[in-house]
Amino acid sequence: MPDVRFVLVGPKFEGNVGAVARSMANFDFEELYLVEPCEIGEDAYRRAKHGSDILDNAVSVGTMEEAVEDCFLVAGTSGITTKGDRNYTRLPVPVREFAQHVSGYDEKMAVVFGREDIGLFQEELNKCDLLINVPTSDRYPVLNLSHAATLVMYELFQFGNVTRRAEPAERKEKEYMFGFFDDLMDAIDYPDHRREDTSVMFRRMMGRSIPTKYEYNTIMGVFGDASKIIKNGKRWE
Amino acid sequence: MPDVRFVLVGPKFEGNVGAVARSMANFDFEELYLVEPCEIGEDAYRRAKHGSDILDNAVSVGTMEEAVEDCFLVAGTSGITTKGDRNYTRLPVPVREFAQHVSGYDEKMAVVFGREDIGLFQEELNKCDLLINVPTSDRYPVLNLSHAATLVMYELFQFGNVTRRAEPAERKEKEYMFGFFDDLMDAIDYPDHRREDTSVMFRRMMGRSIPTKYEYNTIMGVFGDASKIIKNGKRWE
Repeated sequence: MPDVRFVLVGPKFEGNVGAVARSMANFDFEELYLVEPCEIGEDAYRRAKHGSDILDNAVSVGTMEEAVEDCFLVAGTSGITTKGDRNYTRLPVPVREFAQHVSGYDEKMAVVFGREDIGLFQEELNKCDLLINVPTSDRYPVLNLSHAATLVMYELFQFGNVTRRAEPAERKEKEYMFGFFDDLMDAIDYPDHRREDTSVMFRRMMGRSIPTKYEYNTIMGVFGDASKIIKNGKRWE
Repeated sequence: MPDVRFVLVGPKFEGNVGAVARSMANFDFEELYLVEPCEIGEDAYRRAKHGSDILDNAVSVGTMEEAVEDCFLVAGTSGITTKGDRNYTRLPVPVREFAQHVSGYDEKMAVVFGREDIGLFQEELNKCDLLINVPTSDRYPVLNLSHAATLVMYELFQFGNVTRRAEPAERKEKEYMFGFFDDLMDAIDYPDHRREDTSVMFRRMMGRSIPTKYEYNTIMGVFGDASKIIKNGKRWE
Protein backbone atom coordinates (compact mmCIF):
# COMPACT_ATOMS: atom_id res chain seq x y z
CA MET A 1 0.00 0.00 0.00
CA PRO A 2 1.34 3.49 -0.76
CA ASP A 3 2.43 5.47 2.26
CA VAL A 4 -0.49 7.88 2.06
CA ARG A 5 -0.49 11.31 3.62
CA PHE A 6 -3.89 12.91 4.02
CA VAL A 7 -3.90 16.67 3.52
CA LEU A 8 -6.83 18.84 4.59
CA VAL A 9 -6.69 22.31 3.10
CA GLY A 10 -8.39 24.99 5.17
CA PRO A 11 -10.77 22.82 7.22
CA LYS A 12 -13.32 24.99 9.04
CA PHE A 13 -14.85 22.50 11.47
CA GLU A 14 -12.60 20.77 13.97
CA GLY A 15 -15.14 17.96 14.30
CA ASN A 16 -14.40 16.99 10.71
CA VAL A 17 -10.66 16.95 11.38
CA GLY A 18 -11.21 14.68 14.37
CA ALA A 19 -13.47 12.36 12.39
CA VAL A 20 -10.83 12.11 9.65
CA ALA A 21 -8.20 11.19 12.26
CA ARG A 22 -10.44 8.44 13.63
CA SER A 23 -11.04 6.97 10.18
CA MET A 24 -7.31 7.08 9.47
CA ALA A 25 -6.78 4.92 12.54
CA ASN A 26 -9.55 2.61 11.29
CA PHE A 27 -7.70 2.08 8.03
CA ASP A 28 -4.08 2.09 9.25
CA PHE A 29 -3.07 5.51 7.97
CA GLU A 30 -0.90 7.80 10.07
CA GLU A 31 0.18 11.03 8.41
CA LEU A 32 -2.16 14.00 8.59
CA TYR A 33 -1.19 17.44 7.25
CA LEU A 34 -3.35 20.49 7.80
CA VAL A 35 -3.06 23.61 5.65
CA GLU A 36 -4.15 26.71 7.58
CA PRO A 37 -6.65 24.76 9.67
CA CYS A 38 -9.23 25.98 12.16
CA GLU A 39 -8.32 25.57 15.82
CA ILE A 40 -8.06 21.92 16.86
CA GLY A 41 -9.61 21.54 20.29
CA GLU A 42 -11.87 19.42 22.44
CA ASP A 43 -14.46 18.63 19.79
CA ALA A 44 -11.81 17.30 17.41
CA TYR A 45 -10.42 14.99 20.09
CA ARG A 46 -13.89 13.85 21.10
CA ARG A 47 -14.52 12.77 17.50
CA ALA A 48 -11.04 11.32 16.96
CA LYS A 49 -11.36 8.63 19.69
CA HIS A 50 -8.48 6.19 19.14
CA GLY A 51 -7.14 8.44 16.38
CA SER A 52 -6.06 11.05 18.94
CA ASP A 53 -2.34 10.44 18.42
CA ILE A 54 -2.84 11.12 14.71
CA LEU A 55 -4.24 14.50 15.74
CA ASP A 56 -1.34 15.03 18.15
CA ASN A 57 1.14 14.38 15.34
CA ALA A 58 -0.71 16.33 12.63
CA VAL A 59 1.56 18.80 10.85
CA SER A 60 0.21 22.29 10.19
CA VAL A 61 1.64 24.20 7.23
CA GLY A 62 0.83 27.39 5.37
CA THR A 63 0.32 26.18 1.80
CA MET A 64 -0.71 23.06 -0.04
CA GLU A 65 2.67 23.00 -1.79
CA GLU A 66 4.52 22.60 1.49
CA ALA A 67 2.21 19.76 2.41
CA VAL A 68 2.94 17.69 -0.68
CA GLU A 69 6.48 18.50 -1.77
CA ASP A 70 8.02 15.13 -0.88
CA CYS A 71 5.19 13.07 -2.40
CA PHE A 72 5.66 11.21 -5.67
CA LEU A 73 1.97 11.59 -6.51
CA VAL A 74 -0.59 14.18 -5.46
CA ALA A 75 -4.27 13.36 -5.83
CA GLY A 76 -6.78 16.14 -5.40
CA THR A 77 -10.41 15.61 -4.60
CA SER A 78 -13.24 17.51 -6.12
CA GLY A 79 -16.94 17.24 -5.48
CA ILE A 80 -17.60 19.10 -8.69
CA THR A 81 -17.27 16.82 -11.69
CA THR A 82 -17.49 17.73 -15.30
CA LYS A 83 -19.60 15.58 -17.55
CA GLY A 84 -17.99 15.10 -20.92
CA ASP A 85 -14.37 15.81 -21.58
CA ARG A 86 -14.29 19.53 -22.41
CA ASN A 87 -12.76 20.67 -19.16
CA TYR A 88 -10.15 17.96 -18.69
CA THR A 89 -8.58 19.88 -15.80
CA ARG A 90 -11.68 18.93 -13.84
CA LEU A 91 -12.03 15.37 -15.13
CA PRO A 92 -11.68 13.06 -12.13
CA VAL A 93 -10.91 9.36 -11.80
CA PRO A 94 -13.41 7.33 -9.72
CA VAL A 95 -11.89 6.53 -6.35
CA ARG A 96 -11.96 2.76 -6.84
CA GLU A 97 -10.04 3.01 -10.09
CA PHE A 98 -7.61 5.36 -8.37
CA ALA A 99 -7.02 2.94 -5.51
CA GLN A 100 -6.28 0.17 -7.97
CA HIS A 101 -4.10 2.55 -9.99
CA VAL A 102 -1.81 3.31 -7.04
CA SER A 103 -1.81 -0.11 -5.40
CA GLY A 104 1.58 -1.76 -5.34
CA TYR A 105 3.57 1.41 -4.68
CA ASP A 106 5.30 1.87 -1.34
CA GLU A 107 6.36 5.47 -1.84
CA LYS A 108 4.77 8.46 -0.21
CA MET A 109 1.79 10.03 -1.92
CA ALA A 110 -0.71 12.67 -0.87
CA VAL A 111 -4.48 12.82 -1.09
CA VAL A 112 -5.67 16.40 -0.75
CA PHE A 113 -9.12 17.51 0.41
CA GLY A 114 -10.41 21.06 0.09
CA ARG A 115 -12.44 23.36 2.28
CA GLU A 116 -15.88 22.19 3.41
CA ASP A 117 -17.68 24.92 1.45
CA ILE A 118 -15.62 25.77 -1.62
CA GLY A 119 -13.20 22.87 -1.97
CA LEU A 120 -9.81 23.42 -3.57
CA PHE A 121 -9.04 26.53 -5.60
CA GLN A 122 -8.30 26.10 -9.29
CA GLU A 123 -4.59 26.83 -8.75
CA GLU A 124 -4.49 24.13 -6.07
CA LEU A 125 -6.28 21.65 -8.34
CA ASN A 126 -3.78 22.47 -11.08
CA LYS A 127 -0.92 21.38 -8.82
CA CYS A 128 -2.43 17.91 -8.45
CA ASP A 129 -1.22 15.02 -10.57
CA LEU A 130 -4.74 13.75 -10.85
CA LEU A 131 -8.19 14.34 -9.50
CA ILE A 132 -10.29 11.73 -7.84
CA ASN A 133 -13.98 11.64 -7.15
CA VAL A 134 -16.47 9.51 -5.25
CA PRO A 135 -19.38 8.57 -7.55
CA THR A 136 -22.55 9.84 -5.87
CA SER A 137 -26.09 10.94 -6.60
CA ASP A 138 -26.40 13.58 -9.33
CA ARG A 139 -29.05 15.26 -7.23
CA TYR A 140 -26.88 15.83 -4.18
CA PRO A 141 -23.24 14.98 -4.83
CA VAL A 142 -21.60 16.94 -2.01
CA LEU A 143 -20.34 14.57 0.67
CA ASN A 144 -19.34 15.63 4.14
CA LEU A 145 -15.56 16.07 4.29
CA SER A 146 -14.84 13.25 6.73
CA HIS A 147 -17.14 10.88 4.85
CA ALA A 148 -15.41 11.61 1.55
CA ALA A 149 -12.02 11.08 3.17
CA THR A 150 -13.20 7.82 4.76
CA LEU A 151 -14.38 6.48 1.41
CA VAL A 152 -10.96 7.18 -0.11
CA MET A 153 -9.23 5.48 2.83
CA TYR A 154 -11.54 2.48 2.56
CA GLU A 155 -10.78 2.01 -1.13
CA LEU A 156 -7.03 2.39 -0.61
CA PHE A 157 -7.20 -0.11 2.25
CA GLN A 158 -9.03 -2.70 0.12
CA PHE A 159 -6.25 -2.67 -2.45
CA GLY A 160 -3.62 -2.72 0.29
CA ASN A 161 -1.84 -5.99 -0.31
CA VAL A 162 -0.76 -6.39 -3.87
CA THR A 163 2.43 -7.01 -5.77
CA ARG A 164 5.14 -4.38 -5.58
CA ARG A 165 5.48 -2.23 -8.70
CA ALA A 166 8.47 -0.60 -10.39
CA GLU A 167 9.91 2.45 -8.65
CA PRO A 168 8.10 5.57 -9.81
CA ALA A 169 9.72 8.86 -10.77
CA GLU A 170 10.05 11.28 -7.86
CA ARG A 171 8.14 14.51 -7.53
CA LYS A 172 11.29 16.62 -8.18
CA GLU A 173 12.01 14.66 -11.32
CA LYS A 174 8.49 15.10 -12.54
CA GLU A 175 8.55 18.83 -11.85
CA TYR A 176 11.78 18.97 -13.88
CA MET A 177 9.97 17.16 -16.67
CA PHE A 178 7.01 19.55 -16.48
CA GLY A 179 9.52 22.41 -16.68
CA PHE A 180 10.97 20.93 -19.86
CA PHE A 181 7.52 20.66 -21.31
CA ASP A 182 7.01 24.35 -20.60
CA ASP A 183 10.37 25.05 -22.26
CA LEU A 184 9.15 23.18 -25.30
CA MET A 185 6.06 25.36 -25.44
CA ASP A 186 8.26 28.43 -25.14
CA ALA A 187 10.45 27.24 -27.95
CA ILE A 188 7.58 26.65 -30.32
CA ASP A 189 5.85 29.93 -29.46
CA TYR A 190 2.82 28.15 -28.10
CA PRO A 191 -0.15 30.57 -27.79
CA ASP A 192 -0.18 32.18 -24.34
CA HIS A 193 -3.90 31.79 -23.70
CA ARG A 194 -3.70 28.00 -24.11
CA ARG A 195 -0.52 27.41 -22.13
CA GLU A 196 -1.80 26.82 -18.65
CA ASP A 197 -4.48 24.39 -19.83
CA THR A 198 -2.03 22.46 -21.97
CA SER A 199 0.49 22.36 -19.16
CA VAL A 200 -2.10 21.00 -16.76
CA MET A 201 -3.19 18.48 -19.35
CA PHE A 202 0.34 17.15 -19.61
CA ARG A 203 0.55 16.92 -15.83
CA ARG A 204 -2.71 14.97 -15.82
CA MET A 205 -1.52 12.54 -18.45
CA MET A 206 1.54 11.82 -16.35
CA GLY A 207 -0.67 11.52 -13.30
CA ARG A 208 -2.66 8.78 -14.97
CA SER A 209 0.38 6.98 -16.27
CA ILE A 210 2.64 7.28 -13.17
CA PRO A 211 5.95 7.03 -14.99
CA THR A 212 8.66 4.82 -13.52
CA LYS A 213 12.17 6.14 -12.86
CA TYR A 214 13.32 4.25 -15.92
CA GLU A 215 10.59 5.80 -18.06
CA TYR A 216 11.36 9.19 -16.63
CA ASN A 217 15.01 8.90 -17.54
CA THR A 218 14.10 7.72 -21.02
CA ILE A 219 11.57 10.44 -21.68
CA MET A 220 13.84 13.14 -20.27
CA GLY A 221 16.54 12.08 -22.70
CA VAL A 222 14.09 12.76 -25.52
CA PHE A 223 12.67 15.98 -24.09
CA GLY A 224 16.09 17.36 -23.25
CA ASP A 225 17.46 16.73 -26.74
CA ALA A 226 14.36 18.04 -28.43
CA SER A 227 14.38 21.15 -26.33
CA LYS A 228 18.05 21.80 -27.11
CA ILE A 229 17.57 21.37 -30.84
CA ILE A 230 14.59 23.68 -30.89
CA LYS A 231 16.36 26.29 -28.80
CA ASN A 232 19.33 26.18 -31.18
CA GLY A 233 17.00 27.06 -33.99
CA LYS A 234 17.13 23.71 -35.73
CA ARG A 235 13.84 22.12 -36.57
CA TRP A 236 12.82 18.64 -37.59
CA GLU A 237 12.25 18.01 -41.28
CA MET B 1 -30.58 -1.47 -7.12
CA PRO B 2 -32.53 -2.95 -4.22
CA ASP B 3 -34.91 -0.60 -2.50
CA VAL B 4 -32.81 -0.31 0.64
CA ARG B 5 -34.16 0.76 4.01
CA PHE B 6 -31.56 1.85 6.52
CA VAL B 7 -32.41 0.91 10.09
CA LEU B 8 -30.60 2.44 13.05
CA VAL B 9 -31.23 0.55 16.28
CA GLY B 10 -30.94 2.65 19.42
CA PRO B 11 -28.79 5.51 18.09
CA LYS B 12 -27.56 7.66 21.01
CA PHE B 13 -26.19 10.70 19.17
CA GLU B 14 -28.53 12.70 16.97
CA GLY B 15 -25.53 14.03 15.02
CA ASN B 16 -24.92 10.51 13.74
CA VAL B 17 -28.54 10.16 12.65
CA GLY B 18 -28.29 13.47 10.76
CA ALA B 19 -25.03 12.44 9.10
CA VAL B 20 -26.60 9.15 7.99
CA ALA B 21 -29.53 11.07 6.46
CA ARG B 22 -27.14 13.31 4.52
CA SER B 23 -25.19 10.36 3.15
CA MET B 24 -28.45 8.65 2.17
CA ALA B 25 -29.25 11.73 0.05
CA ASN B 26 -25.73 11.55 -1.40
CA PHE B 27 -26.36 7.99 -2.57
CA ASP B 28 -30.04 8.22 -3.57
CA PHE B 29 -31.50 6.30 -0.63
CA GLU B 30 -34.72 7.46 1.02
CA GLU B 31 -36.08 5.20 3.73
CA LEU B 32 -34.77 5.63 7.25
CA TYR B 33 -36.17 3.67 10.20
CA LEU B 34 -35.16 4.39 13.77
CA VAL B 35 -35.64 1.88 16.58
CA GLU B 36 -36.01 3.62 19.94
CA PRO B 37 -33.79 6.53 18.90
CA CYS B 38 -32.48 9.45 20.91
CA GLU B 39 -34.27 12.75 20.41
CA ILE B 40 -33.83 14.11 16.89
CA GLY B 41 -33.30 17.86 17.11
CA GLU B 42 -31.29 20.78 15.81
CA ASP B 43 -27.92 19.02 15.70
CA ALA B 44 -29.32 16.20 13.58
CA TYR B 45 -30.77 18.67 11.08
CA ARG B 46 -27.56 20.69 11.02
CA ARG B 47 -25.65 17.56 10.02
CA ALA B 48 -28.31 16.31 7.60
CA LYS B 49 -28.09 19.32 5.24
CA HIS B 50 -29.94 18.33 2.04
CA GLY B 51 -30.96 15.08 3.70
CA SER B 52 -33.39 16.91 5.99
CA ASP B 53 -36.51 15.50 4.30
CA ILE B 54 -35.14 12.01 4.95
CA LEU B 55 -35.06 12.95 8.64
CA ASP B 56 -38.57 14.41 8.39
CA ASN B 57 -39.86 11.16 6.96
CA ALA B 58 -37.88 8.84 9.24
CA VAL B 59 -40.10 6.21 10.88
CA SER B 60 -39.61 5.51 14.57
CA VAL B 61 -40.56 2.07 15.85
CA GLY B 62 -40.14 0.11 19.06
CA THR B 63 -38.33 -3.02 17.90
CA MET B 64 -36.04 -4.13 15.12
CA GLU B 65 -38.61 -6.69 14.03
CA GLU B 66 -41.17 -3.99 13.25
CA ALA B 67 -38.55 -2.14 11.23
CA VAL B 68 -37.79 -5.04 8.91
CA GLU B 69 -40.96 -7.11 8.63
CA ASP B 70 -41.71 -6.25 5.00
CA CYS B 71 -38.13 -6.70 3.79
CA PHE B 72 -37.13 -9.74 1.72
CA LEU B 73 -33.59 -9.61 3.12
CA VAL B 74 -32.21 -8.25 6.37
CA ALA B 75 -28.50 -7.53 6.62
CA GLY B 76 -27.05 -6.79 10.03
CA THR B 77 -23.79 -5.01 10.62
CA SER B 78 -21.27 -5.98 13.18
CA GLY B 79 -17.97 -4.37 14.01
CA ILE B 80 -16.95 -7.50 15.85
CA THR B 81 -15.78 -10.14 13.43
CA THR B 82 -14.79 -13.66 14.15
CA LYS B 83 -11.63 -14.98 12.60
CA GLY B 84 -12.02 -18.54 11.49
CA ASP B 85 -15.34 -20.26 11.11
CA ARG B 86 -16.16 -21.54 14.60
CA ASN B 87 -18.79 -18.96 15.42
CA TYR B 88 -20.64 -18.86 12.11
CA THR B 89 -23.41 -16.78 13.64
CA ARG B 90 -20.87 -13.94 13.76
CA LEU B 91 -19.23 -14.62 10.39
CA PRO B 92 -19.79 -11.57 8.23
CA VAL B 93 -19.63 -11.00 4.47
CA PRO B 94 -17.38 -8.12 3.35
CA VAL B 95 -19.53 -5.19 2.29
CA ARG B 96 -18.32 -5.19 -1.31
CA GLU B 97 -19.23 -8.84 -1.77
CA PHE B 98 -22.59 -8.12 -0.15
CA ALA B 99 -23.31 -5.24 -2.52
CA GLN B 100 -22.56 -7.46 -5.48
CA HIS B 101 -24.61 -10.25 -3.91
CA VAL B 102 -27.78 -8.13 -3.73
CA SER B 103 -27.33 -6.16 -6.94
CA GLY B 104 -30.04 -6.81 -9.48
CA TYR B 105 -32.90 -7.07 -6.99
CA ASP B 106 -35.57 -4.37 -6.92
CA GLU B 107 -37.36 -5.57 -3.80
CA LYS B 108 -37.13 -3.95 -0.42
CA MET B 109 -34.32 -4.99 1.87
CA ALA B 110 -33.02 -3.63 5.16
CA VAL B 111 -29.53 -2.88 6.39
CA VAL B 112 -29.48 -2.68 10.16
CA PHE B 113 -26.94 -0.79 12.27
CA GLY B 114 -26.61 -1.20 16.02
CA ARG B 115 -25.97 1.15 18.90
CA GLU B 116 -22.81 3.28 18.83
CA ASP B 117 -21.33 1.56 21.88
CA ILE B 118 -22.58 -2.02 21.96
CA GLY B 119 -23.91 -2.63 18.45
CA LEU B 120 -26.71 -5.14 17.95
CA PHE B 121 -27.67 -7.66 20.61
CA GLN B 122 -27.17 -11.32 19.83
CA GLU B 123 -30.93 -11.87 19.48
CA GLU B 124 -31.08 -9.01 16.97
CA LEU B 125 -28.13 -10.40 15.03
CA ASN B 126 -29.85 -13.77 14.99
CA LYS B 127 -32.86 -12.24 13.22
CA CYS B 128 -30.66 -11.08 10.35
CA ASP B 129 -30.39 -13.08 7.14
CA LEU B 130 -26.72 -12.27 6.91
CA LEU B 131 -24.11 -10.13 8.56
CA ILE B 132 -21.96 -7.67 6.74
CA ASN B 133 -18.73 -6.03 7.75
CA VAL B 134 -16.41 -3.30 6.50
CA PRO B 135 -12.83 -4.60 6.36
CA THR B 136 -10.72 -2.33 8.56
CA SER B 137 -7.55 -2.20 10.60
CA ASP B 138 -7.19 -5.04 13.09
CA ARG B 139 -5.80 -2.55 15.57
CA TYR B 140 -8.85 -0.27 15.61
CA PRO B 141 -11.76 -1.77 13.73
CA VAL B 142 -14.61 0.26 15.24
CA LEU B 143 -15.92 2.78 12.72
CA ASN B 144 -18.11 5.71 13.59
CA LEU B 145 -21.77 4.80 12.93
CA SER B 146 -22.38 7.28 10.12
CA HIS B 147 -19.09 6.38 8.45
CA ALA B 148 -19.91 2.69 8.51
CA ALA B 149 -23.36 3.40 7.07
CA THR B 150 -21.88 5.63 4.37
CA LEU B 151 -19.46 2.90 3.29
CA VAL B 152 -22.35 0.46 2.91
CA MET B 153 -24.35 3.02 0.91
CA TYR B 154 -21.35 3.73 -1.30
CA GLU B 155 -20.86 0.06 -2.13
CA LEU B 156 -24.55 -0.48 -2.84
CA PHE B 157 -24.57 2.59 -5.06
CA GLN B 158 -21.56 1.36 -7.08
CA PHE B 159 -23.40 -1.83 -8.00
CA GLY B 160 -26.59 0.10 -8.71
CA ASN B 161 -27.20 -0.58 -12.37
CA VAL B 162 -27.10 -4.23 -13.21
CA THR B 163 -29.36 -6.80 -14.79
CA ARG B 164 -32.58 -7.64 -13.03
CA ARG B 165 -32.63 -10.96 -11.20
CA ALA B 166 -35.33 -13.53 -10.56
CA GLU B 167 -37.95 -12.58 -7.98
CA PRO B 168 -36.74 -13.57 -4.52
CA ALA B 169 -38.84 -15.27 -1.85
CA GLU B 170 -40.54 -12.82 0.50
CA ARG B 171 -39.70 -12.36 4.16
CA LYS B 172 -42.99 -13.98 5.29
CA GLU B 173 -42.31 -16.98 3.09
CA LYS B 174 -38.85 -17.32 4.44
CA GLU B 175 -40.05 -17.05 8.03
CA TYR B 176 -42.52 -19.83 7.23
CA MET B 177 -39.64 -21.88 5.88
CA PHE B 178 -37.56 -21.20 8.99
CA GLY B 179 -40.56 -22.29 11.04
CA PHE B 180 -40.68 -25.57 9.15
CA PHE B 181 -37.00 -26.08 9.79
CA ASP B 182 -37.67 -25.62 13.50
CA ASP B 183 -40.53 -28.13 13.21
CA LEU B 184 -38.10 -30.56 11.65
CA MET B 185 -35.74 -30.11 14.58
CA ASP B 186 -38.66 -30.69 16.95
CA ALA B 187 -39.65 -33.82 15.14
CA ILE B 188 -36.19 -35.35 15.27
CA ASP B 189 -35.63 -34.40 18.92
CA TYR B 190 -32.73 -32.19 18.08
CA PRO B 191 -30.67 -31.36 21.21
CA ASP B 192 -31.97 -28.19 22.87
CA HIS B 193 -28.60 -26.61 23.49
CA ARG B 194 -27.71 -26.68 19.79
CA ARG B 195 -31.03 -25.53 18.41
CA GLU B 196 -30.63 -21.82 18.29
CA ASP B 197 -27.22 -22.02 16.65
CA THR B 198 -28.43 -24.48 14.06
CA SER B 199 -31.50 -22.42 13.38
CA VAL B 200 -29.39 -19.30 12.85
CA MET B 201 -27.01 -21.25 10.64
CA PHE B 202 -29.89 -22.27 8.40
CA ARG B 203 -31.04 -18.66 8.24
CA ARG B 204 -27.52 -17.60 7.28
CA MET B 205 -27.28 -20.19 4.52
CA MET B 206 -30.51 -18.87 3.06
CA GLY B 207 -29.21 -15.33 3.49
CA ARG B 208 -26.21 -16.14 1.37
CA SER B 209 -28.22 -17.99 -1.25
CA ILE B 210 -31.23 -15.62 -1.48
CA PRO B 211 -33.76 -18.19 -2.68
CA THR B 212 -36.11 -17.22 -5.51
CA LYS B 213 -39.87 -17.60 -5.18
CA TYR B 214 -39.63 -20.66 -7.40
CA GLU B 215 -36.92 -22.18 -5.24
CA TYR B 216 -38.89 -21.37 -2.14
CA ASN B 217 -41.96 -23.13 -3.46
CA THR B 218 -39.88 -26.12 -4.45
CA ILE B 219 -38.05 -26.41 -1.16
CA MET B 220 -41.23 -25.91 0.85
CA GLY B 221 -42.78 -28.81 -1.00
CA VAL B 222 -39.95 -30.97 0.27
CA PHE B 223 -39.86 -29.58 3.80
CA GLY B 224 -43.59 -29.73 4.21
CA ASP B 225 -43.79 -33.37 3.15
CA ALA B 226 -40.77 -34.34 5.22
CA SER B 227 -42.19 -32.66 8.27
CA LYS B 228 -45.56 -34.37 7.86
CA ILE B 229 -44.00 -37.80 7.50
CA ILE B 230 -41.83 -37.32 10.55
CA LYS B 231 -44.73 -36.00 12.64
CA ASN B 232 -46.79 -39.06 11.67
CA GLY B 233 -44.08 -41.23 13.08
CA LYS B 234 -42.80 -42.57 9.80
CA ARG B 235 -39.09 -42.36 9.18
CA TRP B 236 -36.95 -42.75 6.11
CA GLU B 237 -35.26 -46.09 5.66
